[in-house]
Amino acid sequence: MGQRIDRERSRARIERDIETLGGPAYTLSQSAICRYAYTDVYRATLDYFTAELERIGFAVWQDPVGTLIASNVAPGAPAFGVGSHCDSNRNGGKYDGTLGVCTALEVCRLATEAGEGLPLRLISFLEEEGSGFGQMLLGSRIMLQRVTEEELRETFRDEDGVSFWDSAEAAGYEPARWRESIHELDGLTGWIEVHIEQGRVLQDTGNRLGIVEAIVGYIHGDLHFHGRADHAGATPMDFRLDAAVPAAETIVELERLANELGGDVVGTVGEIEVQPDLINVVPGSVRLSLDLRSVSDLRGELCRRIVAFARERGEARGVGVEWIPRQELPVQPMDEDVVAALSASARESGEPFRQMPSGAAHDTQCVASRVPSAMVFVPCVDGLSHTPLESADPADAALAAEVVYEAIRARA
Amino acid sequence: MGQRIDRERSRARIERDIETLGGPAYTLSQSAICRYAYTDVYRATLDYFTAELERIGFAVWQDPVGTLIASNVAPGAPAFGVGSHCDSNRNGGKYDGTLGVCTALEVCRLATEAGEGLPLRLISFLEEEGSGFGQMLLGSRIMLQRVTEEELRETFRDEDGVSFWDSAEAAGYEPARWRESIHELDGLTGWIEVHIEQGRVLQDTGNRLGIVEAIVGYIHGDLHFHGRADHAGATPMDFRLDAAVPAAETIVELERLANELGGDVVGTVGEIEVQPDLINVVPGSVRLSLDLRSVSDLRGELCRRIVAFARERGEARGVGVEWIPRQELPVQPMDEDVVAALSASARESGEPFRQMPSGAAHDTQCVASRVPSAMVFVPCVDGLSHTPLESADPADAALAAEVVYEAIRARA
Repeated sequence: MGQRIDRERSRARIERDIETLGGPAYTLSQSAICRYAYTDVYRATLDYFTAELERIGFAVWQDPVGTLIASNVAPGAPAFGVGSHCDSNRNGGKYDGTLGVCTALEVCRLATEAGEGLPLRLISFLEEEGSGFGQMLLGSRIMLQRVTEEELRETFRDEDGVSFWDSAEAAGYEPARWRESIHELDGLTGWIEVHIEQGRVLQDTGNRLGIVEAIVGYIHGDLHFHGRADHAGATPMDFRLDAAVPAAETIVELERLANELGGDVVGTVGEIEVQPDLINVVPGSVRLSLDLRSVSDLRGELCRRIVAFARERGEARGVGVEWIPRQELPVQPMDEDVVAALSASARESGEPFRQMPSGAAHDTQCVASRVPSAMVFVPCVDGLSHTPLESADPADAALAAEVVYEAIRARA
Repeated sequence: MGQRIDRERSRARIERDIETLGGPAYTLSQSAICRYAYTDVYRATLDYFTAELERIGFAVWQDPVGTLIASNVAPGAPAFGVGSHCDSNRNGGKYDGTLGVCTALEVCRLATEAGEGLPLRLISFLEEEGSGFGQMLLGSRIMLQRVTEEELRETFRDEDGVSFWDSAEAAGYEPARWRESIHELDGLTGWIEVHIEQGRVLQDTGNRLGIVEAIVGYIHGDLHFHGRADHAGATPMDFRLDAAVPAAETIVELERLANELGGDVVGTVGEIEVQPDLINVVPGSVRLSLDLRSVSDLRGELCRRIVAFARERGEARGVGVEWIPRQELPVQPMDEDVVAALSASARESGEPFRQMPSGAAHDTQCVASRVPSAMVFVPCVDGLSHTPLESADPADAALAAEVVYEAIRARA
């Protein structure tokens, strides 16, 4: 029980890595971290990790689209995988993604210093946030072949309309060989990603680590309410078909229903679009986005009930209601053995931790379809992420490095 | 009793004017009428009226910001005023505003043809709808000195951030002389504006004209809800400060309260703005516009009660609520004598009419503070306005031209 590594040394190294990569050479913005694939600052970030990994004797290479890989054994040889992503949100902070790669680097350092030859492979995915081409989890989806060549060549484009394919080629990569990327997972005996929680459960429950048991499934879609735009002054209340009122009732009901269903389900209306959106016109139509998540089956039940409620309220008022699904992702359970090894290691550390679901999407949900995987969360202040206000404690990342390293060691 | 003019000739001329100005040379949009100050299509519209007015011997000029004025007597000489506005909503129809200027033009034609030398002054205001700079009744407010120079120079800006001042100068006007605009009202013995009703009262009661007794007062402002943006997946329901839920409760309550207060009060949330407006982020802040109107005192009561409700709901959830007034306009009663003259003239016409309030704001509420004023409404199909679906019968406008012309003649 207690410290099995020099945590203070790990903390200092991780802090130095994170602070360095939060500096002006590694972000396009002065007021936030803004870093995405094929920019100079992204290349500088890969160069930093390359230098640090080569310093401890790891071979470093990239897959055909620019995913960084490093190992202390030959490519394809049995090894345990660690890593995350080092791109950021457009208006991001220093921790989302980068903290996970820095912690994985620290695991590699610990293995090197221990001198036991623990075989490791570090992977830093690109475009997890979708800042470059509007596609979340792009690097891991490419590796797991969850894209089509048509999408890479034509559909996925940056804000200037340049395709992913052309951007990758211009940066010196070989997107035509993208299918080979999956072989970077050959020989992997397991995979652990460390990430900031992006919620406030760890902070508010006083835990220093979260061992992720499953990544939630989600339902994304839009509810459209079709009423009639009328003059706000000249239309008496009882002559209106105001689309905003049943839409508002639906927002209130979504919260009530999610609470009533209880369990782990959450429901959010994050986007509201009104037409014509003028102070003096009764809303003619309203669009609400729905984001419904759970590890349990409750998100499907929540979806059925909120869509039925919206239809019923619309019908009662002569307002048409349409439900248009966008995307649905199933739950991705984590590997029981890897979770058990992490929990045992966390218990050994003597520090407070809890098992929990991940409410956010992560590259690990792609990797987990092929490799026994789990994740470790560290707390972030007030749950803030995707903002320059993002903050996390490198001491927690050092603890995560210790727990991950010992869990891998225990399975080796 | 009966026709005192050739109504069919007036109908044909008004229809031709309206249809011409509904053509592609007079709108920025192919699918709607979109016409606002200082655009080429707006200038073309003023050119059309100028040519038609000069054809009947009227002198035509513009005030320092681009309000069109025409008269058959010298500027400042006693004359009766007629007119409306010829800008449109961004997604507007052919009739709102333009029908009133076309009908005023027809009144000028009738006077010319009668050869009695009835002194008239036509005014076509700019930016009644606020499509250019987000400011309703801007032209008539400038004329009545209901703006500040600071507002014209700095505050009022178009969607690209260019100030009203710079836009007016770029269009060749002299905004620095805006205070002189009020002299365009010098010598006016009265003012009548014809406009589509923008409601469905005339249609549903089978009347061809409405004589307006008062223009409702309104309160415009915004309710801001300040919650906290959190990750939609990683934030359990009971950890949220979702700004959208108390905002939605307020939308529902506004309708309930307006119905409970009854009388003539109406309340509308026409604009909803969410930050950051992303499907996977709990709304951190929400802005609702409020538009509250009545001839009675009920709009003030509605405002107090809905703001108190929003504050109470926000407080109960840890969401800050701010009420930021935009603009408040008192009820503007119409001049009793002008109303009486119009009613007498309408009675003479033999056609069904009624006296009624205006639920919409009009330039006349500015003019009426200085000149004895009234308005005449013509029906519009289903009360639709501010939409390309807007429709009105030029025969009703011709009847209005007759009734207005005879009312002015009776007072001369």
